[in-house]
Amino acid sequence: MHNDPTIQWGNNVVVGEHVVIESNVQIGNEVTIGSFVVIKEGTVIGDHTSIGDLVVLGKAPSANKKMARKPGIALPPLVLGSGVKIGSNVVLYRGSILEDDVLVGDLASIREQVHIGEASIVGRNAIVEPKTTVGKRVTIQTGCYITSDMIIEDEVFFGPCVSTSNDKYMGMGNYPHQGPIIRRGVKIGNNATLLPGITIGEEAIIGAGAVITKDIPAKAIYVGNPGRAISR
Amino acid sequence: MHNDPTIQWGNNVVVGEHVVIESNVQIGNEVTIGSFVVIKEGTVIGDHTSIGDLVVLGKAPSANKKMARKPGIALPPLVLGSGVKIGSNVVLYRGSILEDDVLVGDLASIREQVHIGEASIVGRNAIVEPKTTVGKRVTIQTGCYITSDMIIEDEVFFGPCVSTSNDKYMGMGNYPHQGPIIRRGVKIGNNATLLPGITIGEEAIIGAGAVITKDIPAKAIYVGNPGRAISR
Amino acid sequence: MHNDPTIQWGNNVVVGEHVVIESNVQIGNEVTIGSFVVIKEGTVIGDHTSIGDLVVLGKAPSANKKMARKPGIALPPLVLGSGVKIGSNVVLYRGSILEDDVLVGDLASIREQVHIGEASIVGRNAIVEPKTTVGKRVTIQTGCYITSDMIIEDEVFFGPCVSTSNDKYMGMGNYPHQGPIIRRGVKIGNNATLLPGITIGEEAIIGAGAVITKDIPAKAIYVGNPGRAISR
Repeated sequence: MHNDPTIQWGNNVVVGEHVVIESNVQIGNEVTIGSFVVIKEGTVIGDHTSIGDLVVLGKAPSANKKMARKPGIALPPLVLGSGVKIGSNVVLYRGSILEDDVLVGDLASIREQVHIGEASIVGRNAIVEPKTTVGKRVTIQTGCYITSDMIIEDEVFFGPCVSTSNDKYMGMGNYPHQGPIIRRGVKIGNNATLLPGITIGEEAIIGAGAVITKDIPAKAIYVGNPGRAISR
Repeated sequence: MHNDPTIQWGNNVVVGEHVVIESNVQIGNEVTIGSFVVIKEGTVIGDHTSIGDLVVLGKAPSANKKMARKPGIALPPLVLGSGVKIGSNVVLYRGSILEDDVLVGDLASIREQVHIGEASIVGRNAIVEPKTTVGKRVTIQTGCYITSDMIIEDEVFFGPCVSTSNDKYMGMGNYPHQGPIIRRGVKIGNNATLLPGITIGEEAIIGAGAVITKDIPAKAIYVGNPGRAISR
Repeated sequence: MHNDPTIQWGNNVVVGEHVVIESNVQIGNEVTIGSFVVIKEGTVIGDHTSIGDLVVLGKAPSANKKMARKPGIALPPLVLGSGVKIGSNVVLYRGSILEDDVLVGDLASIREQVHIGEASIVGRNAIVEPKTTVGKRVTIQTGCYITSDMIIEDEVFFGPCVSTSNDKYMGMGNYPHQGPIIRRGVKIGNNATLLPGITIGEEAIIGAGAVITKDIPAKAIYVGNPGRAISR
């Protein structure tokens, strides 16, 4: 496997024990890879990137009969920029791009067709669903659930355990799903709940435990269940 | 190990690298198994089933001194039906049955003595505790916490991050635990909280972030904290 | 590796397949270790301790450019007492101590400089962040998020999915972080939300789904969003 000629190896790559690397994988310079790691077909790993133990990189999506979302037939490989840090027991899918200096915590997972901007953080146990776009310098803290089809602009801060959703009718039919849209600089407290399709305006603040059921204007502060405005 | 004569191998089984298979395991036809997988004693895997990487199948429960629930001494093995799909980094216990076409997402875990009906989904990072029964075509989305001793009927939909509990007195003594009972066709929004022992009637809808402290009649819609009825 | 003379082996140690053990690790008597386990440099494992499959013990912290918290340069190794039980797919960091008879569930993680007292439970999927102190006989149920810099006294009970935070200004600058302080015997219902820096007095009870924004007196009962007192 490791002498497969289709695998490109950079200089000074450190690889742990029992690592499975599939064909056409590209590994940059000064990369560190832990033990018990599976790197699927074609994955691209940038320079100075580090990968923890017990990680899957570039997994292809599957689906059972009931799932609305069909798997991409021919997704491009997973691409990790330079200086990326991936924790242990992490699962990353094909067809996603993590830009330079992104950090992904232990036990996190990121699905297909996701784009994570430079220097953003996806915390431990956090989940990012398909087709979501995350800007630069975004913090998604531990245990957040970022649904599919979200747009998250630069410098947004999600506290721990924020929950989002994208399915207004909860599995009742065929209609477009839309996750929340989070504008630049928004801050969201821990364990807040965001409903499908809402927009949170620039630099708004959402309190811990708030339930946000409608659009929020820029710079507003909302708390409670349902969320209501308080003065800044 | 792989030439242990007590292991039954179907036709066209594809096995990844570094897989540990214990005695008396039964593997059906057209099964795919990832790398770094541990399959414990006696596990039964149906035809056309696929298992991701870094998975434990058929783990026996343990307990420390303080835990109320004693482990089953002699649980039967884990049984996976045909067409089941198991993600990566998943932990499934002995004594549970997953019927045909069940899908279990990455990083999920299902404890002992659980029954999951046909074509149901247990999402990524979701947890199902011991002795819970899940019907057919149920969706348990990503990050849900399904406590022990729950009854979930057919076609129930749990949005992401729904939290349940079964212990009214929070560890204060010896008394029966009872998780919520969820009747057919109920839909529960993301990050809702369900208290111990409540029943949610058929086709009721629970809003995102709601806290449900009492029984809910069939077809009712409840939102807020504490949950109160709104008109349909 | 296993014949590295710097590794100390107790009597009757049972080791699974494909286990990576680094130098200076100390393993007590009657220890059981699963398959696909990584034990990092210097980790100390007490007598009668058991470790599941797919586990990382003694991971060193790292950080990207944006993270406020710098990694400890020279943390001591991870220390597990006797009778400790560690689940599968667990990640434990250097510089932490788990006292005798602690149980850690599957897919849980505990960061550096954490102290967990005797016979406490860290549930499945639960997370404990750096520098937090947990007393004796504490129950942290499945899916809880225990932030950094928390003080949790003896016999506290966290129901499932409790969320805490320590950052009042949500990433807006350099100032001390302070997690909640939870006094002896407090009970917290499932999916409750605790804000930074609050103190919950001895034997207080917090309802399921409550959002606690301020200090709570001893023996009080608080429910709702925001939390308000009800009579006992």
